[in-house]
Amino acid sequence: MYIRGISGNAGEEDDSHSLLIRAGFLRQAYSGIFHLLPLGLRVQDKLERLIDKHMRRIGASKVSLSSISSEELWQKSGRANNAELLRLNDRRESGFLLSPTHEEEITALTASAVKSYKELPLRLYQISRKYRDERRPRQGLLRAKEFLMKDLYTFDYAPEMALETYSDVRGAYAAFFDELKIPYMVAEADSGAMGGNLSHEYHFLSSKGEDNVCACNHCSYIANEELAEKRREPTQAQQANVPHATWTGISKDNKTLVRVYYPQPQRASADSENPAATGPSLSDLNIHVLKQIYPDLNAAIDDPATALRIWDSNVSAEVHPRQCVDIFDYRIARNPHPPEKILTLTTPQSELDTARDTAPSSHPGNPQSFDLTKISSGDGCSRCATGTLTVHKAIEVGHTFHLGTRYSAPLNAVVAVPPEVDAAGQVAMQMGCHGIGLSRMIGAVAAALADSKGLNWPRVITPFEVAVLPGKGNEEDAVGVYEGLMGRGRGAPVAVGQEVELGYAASREKEEVVLDDRDRPLGWKMKDADLVGYPVVVVLGRRWKGERVVEVQCRRLGIKKEVEVEEMNGLVRDLLDQL
Amino acid sequence: MYIRGISGNAGEEDDSHSLLIRAGFLRQAYSGIFHLLPLGLRVQDKLERLIDKHMRRIGASKVSLSSISSEELWQKSGRANNAELLRLNDRRESGFLLSPTHEEEITALTASAVKSYKELPLRLYQISRKYRDERRPRQGLLRAKEFLMKDLYTFDYAPEMALETYSDVRGAYAAFFDELKIPYMVAEADSGAMGGNLSHEYHFLSSKGEDNVCACNHCSYIANEELAEKRREPTQAQQANVPHATWTGISKDNKTLVRVYYPQPQRASADSENPAATGPSLSDLNIHVLKQIYPDLNAAIDDPATALRIWDSNVSAEVHPRQCVDIFDYRIARNPHPPEKILTLTTPQSELDTARDTAPSSHPGNPQSFDLTKISSGDGCSRCATGTLTVHKAIEVGHTFHLGTRYSAPLNAVVAVPPEVDAAGQVAMQMGCHGIGLSRMIGAVAAALADSKGLNWPRVITPFEVAVLPGKGNEEDAVGVYEGLMGRGRGAPVAVGQEVELGYAASREKEEVVLDDRDRPLGWKMKDADLVGYPVVVVLGRRWKGERVVEVQCRRLGIKKEVEVEEMNGLVRDLLDQL
Repeated sequence: MYIRGISGNAGEEDDSHSLLIRAGFLRQAYSGIFHLLPLGLRVQDKLERLIDKHMRRIGASKVSLSSISSEELWQKSGRANNAELLRLNDRRESGFLLSPTHEEEITALTASAVKSYKELPLRLYQISRKYRDERRPRQGLLRAKEFLMKDLYTFDYAPEMALETYSDVRGAYAAFFDELKIPYMVAEADSGAMGGNLSHEYHFLSSKGEDNVCACNHCSYIANEELAEKRREPTQAQQANVPHATWTGISKDNKTLVRVYYPQPQRASADSENPAATGPSLSDLNIHVLKQIYPDLNAAIDDPATALRIWDSNVSAEVHPRQCVDIFDYRIARNPHPPEKILTLTTPQSELDTARDTAPSSHPGNPQSFDLTKISSGDGCSRCATGTLTVHKAIEVGHTFHLGTRYSAPLNAVVAVPPEVDAAGQVAMQMGCHGIGLSRMIGAVAAALADSKGLNWPRVITPFEVAVLPGKGNEEDAVGVYEGLMGRGRGAPVAVGQEVELGYAASREKEEVVLDDRDRPLGWKMKDADLVGYPVVVVLGRRWKGERVVEVQCRRLGIKKEVEVEEMNGLVRDLLDQL
Repeated sequence: MYIRGISGNAGEEDDSHSLLIRAGFLRQAYSGIFHLLPLGLRVQDKLERLIDKHMRRIGASKVSLSSISSEELWQKSGRANNAELLRLNDRRESGFLLSPTHEEEITALTASAVKSYKELPLRLYQISRKYRDERRPRQGLLRAKEFLMKDLYTFDYAPEMALETYSDVRGAYAAFFDELKIPYMVAEADSGAMGGNLSHEYHFLSSKGEDNVCACNHCSYIANEELAEKRREPTQAQQANVPHATWTGISKDNKTLVRVYYPQPQRASADSENPAATGPSLSDLNIHVLKQIYPDLNAAIDDPATALRIWDSNVSAEVHPRQCVDIFDYRIARNPHPPEKILTLTTPQSELDTARDTAPSSHPGNPQSFDLTKISSGDGCSRCATGTLTVHKAIEVGHTFHLGTRYSAPLNAVVAVPPEVDAAGQVAMQMGCHGIGLSRMIGAVAAALADSKGLNWPRVITPFEVAVLPGKGNEEDAVGVYEGLMGRGRGAPVAVGQEVELGYAASREKEEVVLDDRDRPLGWKMKDADLVGYPVVVVLGRRWKGERVVEVQCRRLGIKKEVEVEEMNGLVRDLLDQL
């Protein structure tokens, strides 16, 4: 017998992903690559239809671009060097790649089709597979090599119109997320590799999340850690006696030593437990701010642990910087003694031209006065006077970007405009791009709603709304109950079939009720229904024969209720309306 | 102004593909790679839903396998050397490829999930993008590098059950094709690279087709050229005096010379026009039969013109065969004089061990008596005594294969069975695979129904069923006509938007009526509607004001009728029911 009862690992780090596998939503084919089984595909199809609805409401037209793009086009936009591009190896060495996103292709397509400002605004979206050569695929659908994305691209001819479009899209996103009835956060975000200067992220709270979102407990301020600012301490800007830590790095071209001075964190020393952990931890430093101050730092912001090139004896043996840049936290007095580490420099100190306090390009606030320490829960909110921030682990499931002319300018996507708009008679289109990760969202919803018994699904994307579970001897009656449910009374039932994983006989796909007609004990079926996470379960148990009483269960709402079969439909409907 | 009127090239070889582009259904991104625009995607989505309906009716469950597979798995099935596999170039050199079809993956998946005969039959299908490194992409969607396919895989545990399944699938295919209301042929087919021994192809007749399908004018015999047989001439098997032609090839391992003797075709000599065309043409030889007789021939059956290695002076200078195989048509006497070409052999004749009349492995009929000439229209039918065959150019749009254990055996996809089924207690599953090319079918339908004015669509897959075209001054009234059409009376109309290519505002996707509200002359709109191929067009022309008379057009049925607006709905419905 195929044992699929709940094993004891609920609550582990990988619980919701393994629940998705055990409940038969998907299978891993290779690392970061998944096959969707009938249950998983039903969830994904419902998500797609829900997104279609909200895209239609803002007048977006659906297209379907090829998954294949060309290196040549990505060179024009300056993104061909992305290490995560998956390249094809074809017989002509055509330089093809699998698109992780479609800014380049849609901009080229629109440039060829749209010539006049009269044809704008234009809103085009698609829902398709995207690819990235993920270094470390992990957490199932949350970080995969192949994933399903909704990507909407918007085209306007004036910045203020593009901002109106941006606002329309935010409205559509809010309406979409509201329908899922799962708490979400909209965070101000860094626009990163996408370019542009206005960006929001949509997050589900989850301990599995790899994003840190800072939210104020008093005002509406919510921002991704990359962009968030904490309230500054009421202190003099330069105090000579603040204990400080130093972190030393190197520029991308190896020519500049970067020394960073920031307050020594005040915390219980971990040295007694781990004697090797001397010196300040990199985790105290706000590398997002550092990267904004000094963009040429040899660091990959999305993976600081592995990619930041730290100045140590190995590096100093092979790299010989010609100058030094010092960057100070606002709490640290300038010109402290060089930290001990610097003594390992093989280049004589005298040869280093010191260029202290480099002028930052984009960091908000006083350009010469940086807050270089990481935000922690309990720090003050920078936007209001009284609130404190909480740092939440979160899973990003959506993103909106205002791109401006980041892609339309290099790809020459221009439209003719009247002279009062632009004297030159043409402008590069103002673009936006707006993503929702569908496969990632399946993983994120699973993580957000799973409990110790199994998965749970919001009604709008559940694979089936109701499962009917007959106990021994009630199998034939269950068909009648099934047919009576939801007012549907004809045709053969949707049978669970052989095993949940593969066998959902899809004889009536629009049906939202499933009858578990497998030859298994009732207890096994109940555990399986919990595992799959049907919003409502109807059990034909001991009180069926004679009394015609069914048990209606809704685990998410904590409800188990025995009702006569005549009352069943009303109760089921009431429960579903709350999910 | 963007000119999209009908240019004069209708009727050219590439007409329907260029119509698809000019009418805004798709754009070519790269050779053999296409972006679907809103109109094209609507057709594709409707095809997908129609196929879903017929798959559900035979109890098939829908899955969605990754597009990525691994070379390692394809080595197990023996297909890793396929030159058309598109390989990925990832950071770990993982040996990934883009699947052109999913026998390997689905067999591996099913092997891991299904353990007992009680879980069968199982029918799984998907509709997803497939990839092949096409040497010469051509004819738009008909031969592309990326294409959308429906692939159904069936699993049974006994051959007779698999044949029942095969028959169910044939029924579903017939029901699906019937709904398109386009004439199609079901041909007996060679199962080729797929393996197995029962196979049918579904074809649309088209001069653009690359397949040749032979159909009898008297009985029900229809077969692909690869498998078709013509009635033999009532003649002695070995006549010494039949004028013969000779074709000489070489085996894959270069060790065997293959000499083929077949009747000299009787036709007007082309020599006077093209003096270089001496000797028999390869096009007279039936290489499908030849390949069945001698599978080791150095030839790619799907591309004889380029891949057959002909024995000529270049080859003979570098290749030194050790033996010789002679193959005779049934009309030719054995042991003719070696043809002149052989005289160019650099290997002395005496060194060639002659192994004449090789015993064929699989060719039907008398193994020693081959019909080696190609089938032409007018040849006699081999299945009935009186009919003659016609060779039709056709586009293959579907295929059913009985695979047997071609994949389940090498991939060890076995199920436990009772001893009365198999003494060993387990058997490899009996499989079938059944494809429909969705993107190819869009191209094939376009080719089948296009006329000199533009495209035409069957009602079930048309992007919109009805277009409303207002003349100058009738724009506001047209909204009312639009709303009254098809009994729908609320909401904003589906506007064509800026340009047909990109701008279908998708505010009410389920609507089947489109209102052309663009600022263009009526004549331009009518040409555009013809180009797109809406089944029914409603024109508010000169007789609208005052008389409230609209013109209802149906180009495919040759109908133009002026009716009062009250009669419009009935007429439109009648017309649609015929398409």
